[in-house]
Amino acid sequence: MKVIIRKAIKKDADSILKLIKELALFEGEVDEVILTKESIERDGFGREKLFNCFIAEYDFKVVGIALFYARYSTWKGPTLHLEDLIVTESMKGRGIGKQLYEAFISFAISKGVKRVEWVVLDWNKSAIKFYKKRGAKILKDWRTVQLKIND
Amino acid sequence: MKVIIRKAIKKDADSILKLIKELALFEGEVDEVILTKESIERDGFGREKLFNCFIAEYDFKVVGIALFYARYSTWKGPTLHLEDLIVTESMKGRGIGKQLYEAFISFAISKGVKRVEWVVLDWNKSAIKFYKKRGAKILKDWRTVQLKIND
Repeated sequence: MKVIIRKAIKKDADSILKLIKELALFEGEVDEVILTKESIERDGFGREKLFNCFIAEYDFKVVGIALFYARYSTWKGPTLHLEDLIVTESMKGRGIGKQLYEAFISFAISKGVKRVEWVVLDWNKSAIKFYKKRGAKILKDWRTVQLKIND
Repeated sequence: MKVIIRKAIKKDADSILKLIKELALFEGEVDEVILTKESIERDGFGREKLFNCFIAEYDFKVVGIALFYARYSTWKGPTLHLEDLIVTESMKGRGIGKQLYEAFISFAISKGVKRVEWVVLDWNKSAIKFYKKRGAKILKDWRTVQLKIND
């Protein structure tokens, strides 16, 4: 049985949500997830697409996702942001994350954007090593600022 | 003479680029700016809008910008990202940055997004104080990762 990487379709919405919740649960923050299957269907596969997604499929099951969207740099123009790269716990260690990452990078190259971007936890040394090995730069002095509104 | 905050129009493209370059010059990185007036016209005011922008105008001149675009959180759904908040050097210290910031926040509230986001340099204590005072959270353990492609 081989892992297949493909573009997500509307029918994947529930599987995508399950992976998002699996990760949030692992991080002890599952109550923070207000996204629903319906909002994923609308925002990812509706008239106005707010994100794109690659799926890793194994034995007809969704076992991983790479979810990303367009951003804009006032230096470089259009860029892509990798929001989530998730592989289900039981399938880790088989290079699926790597395959999803590569699908995302290939897509970005084909789109002609000059930069791709994402965030990483500073204590996640193995991820940082993986990204650096592939030429990525870890910005040390920039901090993300978030403000909750309309709560 | 009063500062006016308004939405950017296509004719502002050149003024927007000047402010972007002024900031990049200050940061010693002006050669990194590959954006042109034409790309700003296309990406901000063309058929497919990649960003939105508020303008601060004083004495019929553009003296500041707040440039932002949509992002997507797999926990919260649609969010907005403030990419640049720039006030020209000679007009700093008059509260123009604050007015632009507030225009952005008001816009985000009106759009119903649950979160707004941006980045700040960790040594910029006055900016961090400003954001914290307004309820924003500075994420200490997340790092931005960037990979240049199609160079």
